[in-house]
Amino acid sequence: MEDIEKLIFRFAKEFDKFLLNLLPKNQFSPRLNEAMRYSINVGGKRLRPLFLVEISKIFDVNKVMALRAAAAIELIHCYSLVHDDLPAMDDDNMRRGNLTCHKKFDDATAILVGDAFQSLAYEILSDKATHPNPEVRCFLINELSKASGPLGMVGGQMLDLVAEKKKLSLKEILLLQKLKTGELFRFSCVAGPILSEKKDLSIFSEFAKNLGLAFQIKDDLLDVEGDESKMGKKANKDSSRGKKTLVSFYGKENAKKKSEDLINNSKKILEPYGIQANRIIDLTNFVISRNN
Amino acid sequence: MEDIEKLIFRFAKEFDKFLLNLLPKNQFSPRLNEAMRYSINVGGKRLRPLFLVEISKIFDVNKVMALRAAAAIELIHCYSLVHDDLPAMDDDNMRRGNLTCHKKFDDATAILVGDAFQSLAYEILSDKATHPNPEVRCFLINELSKASGPLGMVGGQMLDLVAEKKKLSLKEILLLQKLKTGELFRFSCVAGPILSEKKDLSIFSEFAKNLGLAFQIKDDLLDVEGDESKMGKKANKDSSRGKKTLVSFYGKENAKKKSEDLINNSKKILEPYGIQANRIIDLTNFVISRNN
Repeated sequence: MEDIEKLIFRFAKEFDKFLLNLLPKNQFSPRLNEAMRYSINVGGKRLRPLFLVEISKIFDVNKVMALRAAAAIELIHCYSLVHDDLPAMDDDNMRRGNLTCHKKFDDATAILVGDAFQSLAYEILSDKATHPNPEVRCFLINELSKASGPLGMVGGQMLDLVAEKKKLSLKEILLLQKLKTGELFRFSCVAGPILSEKKDLSIFSEFAKNLGLAFQIKDDLLDVEGDESKMGKKANKDSSRGKKTLVSFYGKENAKKKSEDLINNSKKILEPYGIQANRIIDLTNFVISRNN
Repeated sequence: MEDIEKLIFRFAKEFDKFLLNLLPKNQFSPRLNEAMRYSINVGGKRLRPLFLVEISKIFDVNKVMALRAAAAIELIHCYSLVHDDLPAMDDDNMRRGNLTCHKKFDDATAILVGDAFQSLAYEILSDKATHPNPEVRCFLINELSKASGPLGMVGGQMLDLVAEKKKLSLKEILLLQKLKTGELFRFSCVAGPILSEKKDLSIFSEFAKNLGLAFQIKDDLLDVEGDESKMGKKANKDSSRGKKTLVSFYGKENAKKKSEDLINNSKKILEPYGIQANRIIDLTNFVISRNN
């Protein structure tokens, strides 16, 4: 397991450098520039970009192209975190041991940072450097905008807000998870096949479905069991707000079992790719063994 | 002048129907669905879409394609209004005589509505129905994302926030205007040439520069002179906050003169298009004669 943690650490360092380089250098507003860079530098494991880049390797996708698509999805993820942390939403002061963007700057700046990240994601994807074939670029943009829009991530966040006031059913929680985190995971896993113009989309879409749900259950388990110092944010966030989670439905032991089953499924789906998929399988194991 | 007002009214009605039809019908969150439709229904003159569609006519662009590009830019404009009205930003309760989105719903919903509008704009542009040539779709997406991002609209809004605390120079205010409203106006005016794959971009870019600045001066004049009941929002908003505007620099009479010069310039730029540009010239005249 140590090796995969090293790989994740090394990749995150390389990826962050690449991503920061894609931010506009000569911004007219130094404050916006600083707040954008701060919100990227707060870091993260960059799991979505890593899955995207590793799956792209199976399909011999040019590294820079894969990194650009990865930058786009990470910008969408980062924008959602910056907006989600706002007082009007989750009202979080800390993320990964650092002040959240609105705490370090102010609410207005955080709103604009999120808005800017979203537009940058599409600027990057629409640029020739992401793929010589414009049909491929449009395909990526269409998939990412759907995954992050009202029938994807934003829709999931809206259900999440409602969940604070109303007890959701298991079916509703599964839908919330699919929208809020599942759709972006799906994009991470299908971007490689799209960039390679191969037809393996449905396989990787199925892989992502299992992976995304396992990831969410692990997140919920960490929320219940987690060590705040390792997580760099409040533990017991959901349960203290009375939110129903997958773990509160399944129970801790069954949830663990369920996430292991999902991980086994997702590994099985990759069998046709043989040893080429080893790295992705290691990453998949990491998703449920991580402690933050 | 009455005819052009009728045209604007008729177009807005037709366009709003088209735009509402592009919103996802079966949303998982009824609240998000309602808030998105409400924020569109609050209305507006839809001048950006109208310029886009009328310029597209010169180039024989298919009507639906022009309307789709117009929908994308209006969604970006609407998202910026919904976010701009938030308490953390301009803190406005009323817009066009109606409660603003966060007042009618709540802050969190308004943040998500804005986010959803932005992703929808790119979903629409990346779809085949906007243009059969994916190169054209990518071109539009690249232009719109740049126009609305950190080196465009969002950058301008950041400068605008800073302007509340710091007296800007005329040069800085001109930059603010160019970023905050000018870049989106530019998109409205070049989308037609892009959709037609013609090379008239620089002409319409120059036209937009004059038009956008004239529009902004008129907005500032309305802010000083305007009748609240006609504007449906607070008058004297900028001056009461001590913000320097183009009018406070030029003085009222010179500002009027300046905007007339800009409008004359923009009409001159269209001379090569002869009577084909008549409608656009009428619209251009309307920009500085409107009283709301």
